[in-house]
Parts: sequence; structure tokens; C-alpha cells
Amino acid sequence: MWIETKTEMEEASRTRASFSRRVLNGLLLCSGDMEHLDKYIKDKSFVLQLAVCGLRGVTRVILANNPLSGGLILAALYWASPWQGLLGTLGVLASTLTAVITGQDSVEVAGGHHGFNGMLVSLLMGVYSSAGDWYWWLLLPVFLGSATCVFLFSGLSSFLDRWDLPAAVFPFNIIIILYLLCTGPEHPYFPHHSIKPPGALEPNATKLIALQVIRGIPLGVGQIFACGDLGPSLLILGAVFLYSPLLAVHALLGSTVGTLTGLSMAVRHESLYSGLSGFNGALGCMAVGGFFILSLWTHLFAIASAFFSAYADIALSNLMGTVGLPACSWAATLVATLMLLLTGSLAAYRIPTGQVRAPERNLQLRSQWEAGNTEERESADV
Amino acid sequence: MWIETKTEMEEASRTRASFSRRVLNGLLLCSGDMEHLDKYIKDKSFVLQLAVCGLRGVTRVILANNPLSGGLILAALYWASPWQGLLGTLGVLASTLTAVITGQDSVEVAGGHHGFNGMLVSLLMGVYSSAGDWYWWLLLPVFLGSATCVFLFSGLSSFLDRWDLPAAVFPFNIIIILYLLCTGPEHPYFPHHSIKPPGALEPNATKLIALQVIRGIPLGVGQIFACGDLGPSLLILGAVFLYSPLLAVHALLGSTVGTLTGLSMAVRHESLYSGLSGFNGALGCMAVGGFFILSLWTHLFAIASAFFSAYADIALSNLMGTVGLPACSWAATLVATLMLLLTGSLAAYRIPTGQVRAPERNLQLRSQWEAGNTEERESADV
Amino acid sequence: MWIETKTEMEEASRTRASFSRRVLNGLLLCSGDMEHLDKYIKDKSFVLQLAVCGLRGVTRVILANNPLSGGLILAALYWASPWQGLLGTLGVLASTLTAVITGQDSVEVAGGHHGFNGMLVSLLMGVYSSAGDWYWWLLLPVFLGSATCVFLFSGLSSFLDRWDLPAAVFPFNIIIILYLLCTGPEHPYFPHHSIKPPGALEPNATKLIALQVIRGIPLGVGQIFACGDLGPSLLILGAVFLYSPLLAVHALLGSTVGTLTGLSMAVRHESLYSGLSGFNGALGCMAVGGFFILSLWTHLFAIASAFFSAYADIALSNLMGTVGLPACSWAATLVATLMLLLTGSLAAYRIPTGQVRAPERNLQLRSQWEAGNTEERESADV
Repeated sequence: MWIETKTEMEEASRTRASFSRRVLNGLLLCSGDMEHLDKYIKDKSFVLQLAVCGLRGVTRVILANNPLSGGLILAALYWASPWQGLLGTLGVLASTLTAVITGQDSVEVAGGHHGFNGMLVSLLMGVYSSAGDWYWWLLLPVFLGSATCVFLFSGLSSFLDRWDLPAAVFPFNIIIILYLLCTGPEHPYFPHHSIKPPGALEPNATKLIALQVIRGIPLGVGQIFACGDLGPSLLILGAVFLYSPLLAVHALLGSTVGTLTGLSMAVRHESLYSGLSGFNGALGCMAVGGFFILSLWTHLFAIASAFFSAYADIALSNLMGTVGLPACSWAATLVATLMLLLTGSLAAYRIPTGQVRAPERNLQLRSQWEAGNTEERESADV
Repeated sequence: MWIETKTEMEEASRTRASFSRRVLNGLLLCSGDMEHLDKYIKDKSFVLQLAVCGLRGVTRVILANNPLSGGLILAALYWASPWQGLLGTLGVLASTLTAVITGQDSVEVAGGHHGFNGMLVSLLMGVYSSAGDWYWWLLLPVFLGSATCVFLFSGLSSFLDRWDLPAAVFPFNIIIILYLLCTGPEHPYFPHHSIKPPGALEPNATKLIALQVIRGIPLGVGQIFACGDLGPSLLILGAVFLYSPLLAVHALLGSTVGTLTGLSMAVRHESLYSGLSGFNGALGCMAVGGFFILSLWTHLFAIASAFFSAYADIALSNLMGTVGLPACSWAATLVATLMLLLTGSLAAYRIPTGQVRAPERNLQLRSQWEAGNTEERESADV
Repeated sequence: MWIETKTEMEEASRTRASFSRRVLNGLLLCSGDMEHLDKYIKDKSFVLQLAVCGLRGVTRVILANNPLSGGLILAALYWASPWQGLLGTLGVLASTLTAVITGQDSVEVAGGHHGFNGMLVSLLMGVYSSAGDWYWWLLLPVFLGSATCVFLFSGLSSFLDRWDLPAAVFPFNIIIILYLLCTGPEHPYFPHHSIKPPGALEPNATKLIALQVIRGIPLGVGQIFACGDLGPSLLILGAVFLYSPLLAVHALLGSTVGTLTGLSMAVRHESLYSGLSGFNGALGCMAVGGFFILSLWTHLFAIASAFFSAYADIALSNLMGTVGLPACSWAATLVATLMLLLTGSLAAYRIPTGQVRAPERNLQLRSQWEAGNTEERESADV
């Protein structure tokens, strides 16, 4: 009896172990860049392919590339506001389809590179519109704006390619500024809220509430998608975690740095509470965390980048606020571009733009890309 | 008798046919880039050469290159206002001579590449000046501004050459903005009109007059040369038609698109009536029509480019209007530059900057430049 | 007796001649780039090396490269205001050390290329601060700002390197603008003076005093280091003269041109008296004088560059003044960059960025660098 029982227990434990190993494997399969999925859907229908590259596009905003994370983020947006979720979906579809029609590089399209700018443009148009939710005329600028992003992305990529720089979210930043300039707070068709610079003086300032400030840190991650609710923001953070735990840590760290920066510059309380102080820091931090191989050195640079992004955001917000414009993610995009151009010790850790994967995978592939990098340099020297 | 009569009639008809053929041939000789003229004037006097390259420069503004069109345009300007005509003439001469003195590439100078920016600067200085016509002191900034355009053109060309982009009218746009910033509405020596952004609210807005709006479409072509009268504008359009009927169609189409854009964004009525809404659209449309080989595909892109230019113009005008500046042709120039950078299906139709001729001739030379293009690419790859 | 006396006299005269020759030799050793010093201090302590490359950095602002001149300039700053002197010293040290820590190219660091932007940022933060001297909290932004300059310098250098352009004082100009935007006149921690544009109307304008305007010319050289006192300004001019008499002549000439420009545009009197009208002209003139081999031709270009810089400065000051920002040295930096890009006859005189020495030495080395230039071009063509 004893022997049998022992065997049974051993078997049960083995089953449990194998079950949790299978769960872990499943999770690992769903994590990272999910390159195996591309092989699987290669001969599937166009709609499925479009859905996958759209969802990849959704995650490109936060430097991730994982359709499941994209689904989670979309779910978070629908949770926060169904109208915003719809706008985001339409935006990512409109720009991806425009890219297909205008014959952009199919590998880029499949990787979601042409979706994320359109999505951001749509989301921000929705957020700034003062015509309320379900104002269907807004779909007109949403479609046009998202489609135009493809042109800007393609043109800017050609331009920046000389320095192996990505076009990043420059197209979104340009289009949304042009849209807001075209219309205006009193526009008869597309009115929008007027934007207050973070440095604006508060006539009846109250005491700062520490808990609200801390709440602003995860909100800073949500604000990347113009989402100001705690639940959806945490879901977005979870989506980043699914793609890469390291990136999620960088996001939180950057948002914290951004909030600290806001405190040091005494910005408006609302800016701190809503997470708007944090999101440029988060993006700046993630950019270094994502485009460089992790080490103590790059980690310090990521923090420096977060600080620089956050300060530059306050400066640009104050400048653009004088003409009633938001600074969007100009600061983080410019700082990240600068970081990618750096020479010195940081340059040795840089991953060529086309070879960037999830940070964990970058660490694994280090030796591999280093070899590739040397070859590339050699071919560039010729 | 009958036989004789028949012969006479045949002869008469033959003479008529040969006459109309000769007229057509003569027209064809005067149309297009008139490259045969260069051989003819090669050993003529400097003054004649200067006149021809000055007139070529006049047409470069509208992406044409034909001394007769240049003469027609100058005539239109003198017709609209003799003072403006004089300023334009002086501007094109000042900058062309500066280019000769500073030793710029002689082929470029002969092609009129150094004249058009100076001309635009002079015209716009005259238009914005509130000191009235025949204010001779204005010649001082006109000469200085036109001469400086050469430096900017040369420097920007070196910069943009990496992407095979032309410096276009960037020098004009920069110099006129600097000039307007230097002076100001209340300047003691060079006062200028204050500029109203197109999105400015009209306190006592009247009903829109359809006929006036339609009249604004040809005016949009004239506004490229800061000319707001119908007759001269039609003459300018005729000059474009002489160079290339296709380009003239693009100009009218672009101006129509620009006016539609202005309507959709509810700009000030004056902006629509005067053609100011249309001219950026016209330029954006002509740029794609001129720098790309005509096809259904590029035609659609030309319309998209016109829309984008016109919207960007409204946005930039609203932005720059906050500090009392006009947006000039910044929008069209930036959008055209972006279009030239595009990858995807449009890129295959692009003509290398140095090989651009009249659209009709580009169609003819297609096979020829494609061969040249391949060679060039090969040499660039080495 | 007579013979002896004669011999004595001859000896005395020989001694005098040899003494003055030795003095002259000593002066010549202290003049120019002092490259011999680098060999001497190569194996000395880190602190001495840091001091030398810091002092070289101080002179880089005015396109010089001589530690003794650097010492004189620092002395002038301490003379004008000990607090400003301290800020300048800390700025140059902070950015040089940051460059060492972040592993920038050691030859560049030793040449002082990473010091001058940090120094300018610190000086200007001090000048604009309205919290008064010895406000120790200011050291926080001084350190951060100076350190950030290294990142900007490194990134911009990578970017501009494609055209063999130097990053020059772009990092300083960017950082100081961001700092001023971040804070503001009413900032609780770092308040600063509000800046008046030079074109602002003066309600009770008095008659212009010619002597004060002439006094503004040497002050224009001092204003490069934000120093507005005559004595220290003259000492700074002397420091430039020690490095290169030709550069000093260009500085004075440029400042004169700038002042004339200010007069022609009727700027505020204070702007003329304080030398603020002159310093962009001086920088623009020195840039052409320093980066091109001297000839009649380049001399004329240097004057043109001074005029263009000064007019552009008035324009940019008026523009940036509308949001309460100073134009710093944006105008001169942009114009100098443009001049370096020029094609035509000027291009033949250009010295490759890495081979620039004192103007006198450039003249000597002409044949040498021309040979080098040809080689470089050949290697670039391959």
C-alpha cells in the first residue's frame, strides 16, 4: 500500500509540475514578440492578418509588439470609454489599410508599424473634442488624420533612415498639432477643449494630496493612450508586463521620475493627479529600455532619459500652451531620438532599429546582433 | 478650268495646312522647357543670357521653366501693379546676379534656379508693405533679401541634397518671415500690414457668395505671385498652360481643392474670395504633378497632396497668425518635400530632381530616365 | 677704451635684442592653439589635465582654443561678478566631467569641446535668474543643465556629422530655452527676469547717445559671455587677441556690424548700449573668420555673415520675445551653420571641421590641409 501511495503521490506531483510547466510555456508563448504567430497566420484570411497586424500596431505605441497585449490594451480603452475604444480601433484600421493601399513595405505593415500613429491621432482627437462622445462627424478627421500618418511615417522614415532612427510617434505629434491648429476652441464643426499649460498659476491652489500623486504614477502609463482611469491604466500596464516585465518596470519607473520632475517644477496639481506629468517620462524611460541592451549603465541612462523627457515636456507644454496647444509626446520622442544618436559608452549597447525585440530577448540575442552589427558596420563602411 | 481650280484649291488647302502646321510647330517650340534656346543664346551677350535666365527664374516659382511663360507672368505682374512688376524684376535680377558673383554652379544659374526665391521675396515685401507704392526705401530690403536668398538656397541645397530633395521655396519662406519679424506693423522705416489668420472669427459674417468663391479658384493661381486680380491671374494661368497644359490643369485642380478645404474648415470669407485659400493647394498639387510621372496613381496623390497642403496651410496660418505672421507657402513646400521622400508605390514614379522637365516631356522621356535612374542607383550603391 | 665701449654697447644691444626675441617667442608660445602644451601635460595629474581642458573649453565659445586665453576670460568673469565667475567655472567642470563619465571621445574632451556649452548654460542661468547672486539652489539646474549639454552635443554631432558640421552652441541654445520655459518669471523656486524683445516700442524714448553706442561695440564681445561691463569685456577681447589677432579683429568688426544693423532697424536704445545688438554679429563674423582661410573674398563673406546674423537675431528676438524668451545666439549659430554648407566660391576656402586652428596658423597650413582635403574627398567618394 505504502509503495503504491508514494507512486501515486509522485505521479500527482509530476502531473502538477507538468501542468504548471505547460501553463508557464503557454504564457511564455504569449509573451515577447510572438514571432511564431506570423508563420501560423501566413496563409490565413486577410481579415485575420489585418486584425493581428492591427493589434501589433496598438502595442507599438509603447514600444511593444505583441497582439495579445494589443487586445488587452484595446479592451482597456473600451472599458474606459467605448467611444474612445471605437475611435482607436478605427484609427489603427484606417492607417493600416492606407499603408496597404499605398503599397508600403509589407513586412513593416505586418509588424504594425503603420498602425500606431493613426491610433494615437484618433484617440487624441476624441479626447480633445468638446463635442462629446458619439459625435459621428468626428470620424471624418479621424479617417483623414489616420491616413495622413502613413504618408508622414513613410516620408520621415526615408529622412531619418540615414541615421538609423525610427520615425517613432513624430507623425502622430505633427498631425494632431495640425488638426488642433486647423480647428480651435470655437470651431463650428470640430470644437475642442482649450489646453492649459502645466506651469499655469493656480489662483486657489489647495494642499497637495500625496495619495493622489502616487495614484498618478500608474495613470501616467495609461495616459500614453490618453486614458485617465485607474483600472484601464493598470490593465494597460498588465499588457506591457505580458509583453515584457522589464519594459513594464521601465514604464513605472519613468512615470515615477516624471511625477518627481513635476513636483520639482511645481506644476499644476491636476497635471500630477491625472498622470500627464508622468507619461513623457515613462515613454523616455521605455525608449532607452527598449532600444538598448539592458545593463546597469543603460539603466542609469534610462532614468536620465526619463528626467530629461519630463523636464522637456514641462518646457514644451508651457511654450505650446501659450497658443493653446498640448505638447503631446514631443518631448519624449525628441529625447529618445537624441538618445539613439548618442556616441560614447551608451552607443555600444544600442540595438540596430530593425533588430529590436522584447528587452528580455535582446539580452539573449546580444551576441547574435553584435555579430550582425559588426557586419552591418563593415558593409556601411564600404 | 476645273482641273486648275481643283489644283488651286488643293494648293490653298495645302498652304493652310502647312501654315497651321507651322503655327503649331512654332507653338510647340515655345512650349516646354525650350532647351533649344540655350544653344542659340550660348554665344550671345551677357545681358541677353541674364534676361533669359531671369525669365526662366520667374517661372521656376510654379515649377515651370520657360522664358516665354516668364515674360507673360512678368507682363501680368506689371498689368496688376507696375510697382509690383518692378519689384519682381529687381528681385529676380538681384538674386541671379548675386549667384553669378558668388560663383554658384553656372548650369543652375542659367536654369533660373537662383532667381525665383529672390523674386518672391521682393513681391511679398511689396505686398505686405504698408508704406504704399513707389516707396523707394523699400528697394534696400528688396536687394538685401533677394541676395540673401542665394546663400540660403546654396546652403539648403547642400543639406537636402542627401535625399535628392530640392531647396524649393524654403529660402523665400525663411527670408520673408525674418523680414516681417525684423520690422513690424509700427516700424519707423519699413511698416507692414498686420496679417489676420484665416481662422479668425468674423464678428459680422455675411452669407457666402458662391460666385465669388468660384472666382477665387483662378485667383489662387495668381496668389502664387501675390497677385489678387482676375485678369493677371488668368494670364499667369495662360503662361503655365503655354509651358505645359498638364501643369495648368494641376494648378486649377489644386486651387479648387484648396478652396474646398477652406470651405470645410469655415475659414474667413475674404480668404476664400481672394484666392489665399487656394494657392497652397495649387502648389502642392503642381509639385506632385511636376516631380512625378503622370499616371492615375500619381494623379490621386496629387489631389491628396493638394488637400494636405491646404489643411496644413490653414493650421500654420492660424499658428503664425498668433504672432502676426503669414504662413506664405510653408505648407505646400513642406508637404511637397514630404511627398518626394515617400516610399511605397509612389516612389516608383518619382523623377530624379535634376531630370525634371515639363510633365508631357517627362511622359515621353520615361523609359530614358528610368534607365538613367537605374544607373544612378547603381552608382549610389557603390 | 673706445673699442671696449663699442663692444659693450654691441653686447648690450644684442642682449636686449635676444631678450625681446625671447619675450616674443614666449608670447608666440602662449598664442595660437598651444598644441605643445598637450604633450607636456600628457603624463601629469588628472586635475591639471582637467584644468587645461576646462580652460580650453572656456575659449571654445569664441572659436578659440588656448588655455591662457581661457584663464584671462575666467578672470574677466570673476572681475565682473564673482558669482558669475563661479557659475561659469562650475558649468565648464560639470559638463567636462559628465563627458568623461559618459565615455565621450577623449581627444574631443581634451580639446575642451564638451565644456563650452555647459559654461554658457550656467552663465546665462545666472544672468536671467531674478533670485539674486549667491542663491545656492541655482547650482541644481546649473549642474543638471551643464550635464545635459553633453548628451545634446554628442547626439547633435552624430546628426550634423553627415555634412561635416559642428554642433557648435546649439546644445546651449536648446538647454537654456528649455530651462527658461520650464521655470518662468513667477516660478516659486527658480524665478527669472522677463525678457524684452529689441523691437519693443519705447514709450519715452530719449535721443540716442553716440558715445554709448560706440561703447556698445566692445561690450558686444563681452556679451558672448553674458558680461556687460566694459573692463572685463576688453579683457575678453584681449584674450581673443592673445589667441589670434585676426580673430579679435573679426570680433570687433562683427560687433560693429551688429550695432549698425541695430541702428538700421531702430531697436531699443538699451539693446545698443548693452552690446546685445552686437554679439550675434560678432559670433557670425568670427565663425566665417575662423572656419575659412582668410582672403579678401572670405573677409567680405565674414561681413555678410555678420550682417545676416545680426538681422536674424533681431527677427528671432522679436519672435521669441512674444513668449518672453531671449534669442540667445540662435541667429549666429544658424547663420554660421548655413555658411559652412555653402557651395560656390566660398566653399573652396573652407577648412574641414577637425582641422581648424587659429586663423594665422590656418593660413600657414593651407597647402597642408588642402592636400588632406583632397584625400578626404577621395575617400568620401569611394
